[in-house]
Amino acid sequence: MDKYRIAIVGSGIVGQELARILEQRNFPIASLRLYSTESAAGAIVSVARQSYPVNALGHTAEQNVFRETDSVFFTESENTSRHWVPQAVQAGATVIDSSSLWRLEPDVPLVVPEVNAADIEFHRGIISSPGCSTILLNTVLFPLHKRNPVQRVILSTYQSASGLGQPAMSELVFQTQQILAGESPRPNLFPHEIGFNVLPQVDVFLDNGYTKEEWQLLEETRKILHNNDILVSATCVRVPILKGHCQAITVEFKNEITPEIAGDILAEAPGVRLMDDPSVGFYPHPRIAAGTDLVMVGRIRQENFNLNGLVLWVVADNIRKGAALNMVQIAEEINKKGWLKTKGQR
Amino acid sequence: MDKYRIAIVGSGIVGQELARILEQRNFPIASLRLYSTESAAGAIVSVARQSYPVNALGHTAEQNVFRETDSVFFTESENTSRHWVPQAVQAGATVIDSSSLWRLEPDVPLVVPEVNAADIEFHRGIISSPGCSTILLNTVLFPLHKRNPVQRVILSTYQSASGLGQPAMSELVFQTQQILAGESPRPNLFPHEIGFNVLPQVDVFLDNGYTKEEWQLLEETRKILHNNDILVSATCVRVPILKGHCQAITVEFKNEITPEIAGDILAEAPGVRLMDDPSVGFYPHPRIAAGTDLVMVGRIRQENFNLNGLVLWVVADNIRKGAALNMVQIAEEINKKGWLKTKGQR
Repeated sequence: MDKYRIAIVGSGIVGQELARILEQRNFPIASLRLYSTESAAGAIVSVARQSYPVNALGHTAEQNVFRETDSVFFTESENTSRHWVPQAVQAGATVIDSSSLWRLEPDVPLVVPEVNAADIEFHRGIISSPGCSTILLNTVLFPLHKRNPVQRVILSTYQSASGLGQPAMSELVFQTQQILAGESPRPNLFPHEIGFNVLPQVDVFLDNGYTKEEWQLLEETRKILHNNDILVSATCVRVPILKGHCQAITVEFKNEITPEIAGDILAEAPGVRLMDDPSVGFYPHPRIAAGTDLVMVGRIRQENFNLNGLVLWVVADNIRKGAALNMVQIAEEINKKGWLKTKGQR
Repeated sequence: MDKYRIAIVGSGIVGQELARILEQRNFPIASLRLYSTESAAGAIVSVARQSYPVNALGHTAEQNVFRETDSVFFTESENTSRHWVPQAVQAGATVIDSSSLWRLEPDVPLVVPEVNAADIEFHRGIISSPGCSTILLNTVLFPLHKRNPVQRVILSTYQSASGLGQPAMSELVFQTQQILAGESPRPNLFPHEIGFNVLPQVDVFLDNGYTKEEWQLLEETRKILHNNDILVSATCVRVPILKGHCQAITVEFKNEITPEIAGDILAEAPGVRLMDDPSVGFYPHPRIAAGTDLVMVGRIRQENFNLNGLVLWVVADNIRKGAALNMVQIAEEINKKGWLKTKGQR
């Protein structure tokens, strides 16, 4: 079996989780190097079986840095991806990028492996991993959509601090401690206080009143499902929890559907865990989703007075399936097809 | 001006807030007595200008306890209301009840004063105050509905621990401290851990998969708006905050509507505060809503691809407008009409 020379750009929460998942899933690694434009060189990241020094990635052009690399996972900011992804591609590496930069580019596959792994085929060096909210939504939507076309989705999210990275988690913890001590926190990474608070803002606002996070749920879903007729309207909200994203989703289908049929479909769906016996308190919530790989779904019920409508409650670990795991799954799909070792073949 | 002999049943967070609001709004009080079936007699509740001893309300029949009372506010459990409200009515007092017991009874007005104060007229001793989520929703919905009939509402809530009372707030604080100290909390009042967690359950589940809290949003809204055609589908969710409830609301109207028109209507609407300039971070959130009287609304935008649809973000103090303030406003309306002093007149 081929083994691959892997690089991860970003030593934050997603980068670390990536290294951990590559180990956990026994990805065939020849070498694994961690880079960061943000951390000081010399930092050490320890995952389950190994420790990795973090190599500083300067902002000057060093075209050869990825020369000896088969695949690079980018997990830092759009700025980092904008500067370094083209260099990695030029050096012949296959890039899996979590930034939103290329997600809607026609020649860049945007992939949730359970949904559209086949799209990887048309990649020209970059495969994009969708936003965390998009990944959760589409993992659950797709198996239903295959059987009964989805026409309209209205959703509200409950997103954890970790979606903004480790410093945001620290800010939530610190603010919480301050409030418990009777002090008044001062927001830094969040637009307002996040400790014991709820903020209806994730990412920046667009002219139409939606945030970028809300709007990309529409555009990314259409690209992933290959369907430009689906209507998606989202309200994305930050809640004061550390890990796990939740979604309250109302879906209108083309034809009639029942909660029983949807439950049967989702019980068999890849990447999904059905947890739906609310009368005994059996439904997903972030505390039990953190650290797990599946997108949990429960509270499936008929939308009041709408035989074509369902309401669902979806929860997953936003750092794993919402980011790092989805990227590793993309790499696994590429590896299955033997497309990862593309050096000199493009 | 007439002055009234007032009793409050319940010395918890809503009962205390009621006493405070009656003082703040200079309600014409001849006497104010606090009762509780839960607290030990002899407890003292202090509000802004005064302290009140709490009188124990035994579970045995004491028909004369409300004999010298003009109006009784019930803020305890359904069990307390079931036992004591009929006795208060029989003693000739006018009851304002916050339990869900009589909310849907045809001869009991269910009142949000900004919406349907006139309904008070048909009361026969009991006026019900709606659930906190219903009050928030209808205060915002009604001014829009008057101009352009509301046909369908899909909403998700973000509800604070205080909706379950002071002990639930203490449980959230204690669990948060435990988690910060690396300990594992054990849930008591909540069905699962609430510290740094999100729970898609408020109240008990019905056979149709909705919770009672979700279902009553439909039935109470229809009664308050005098319209049995309105469709309401809700997902009610508990979030780890102390005070304030939020709602992400999608509304379909009979005719086309724009965010600008809705904003103009809501800017003038009684009980509503428009806070809608998201580009500078100006939108409602629980931290700024706590302790205030108005239902705040912001993030008003067109639903994607639906000229008859709007999306709104609504926040209010669930203990004030969501409970105690609404009850005082009902009493004020009754007082305006001179209906409070009804002893011997029914």
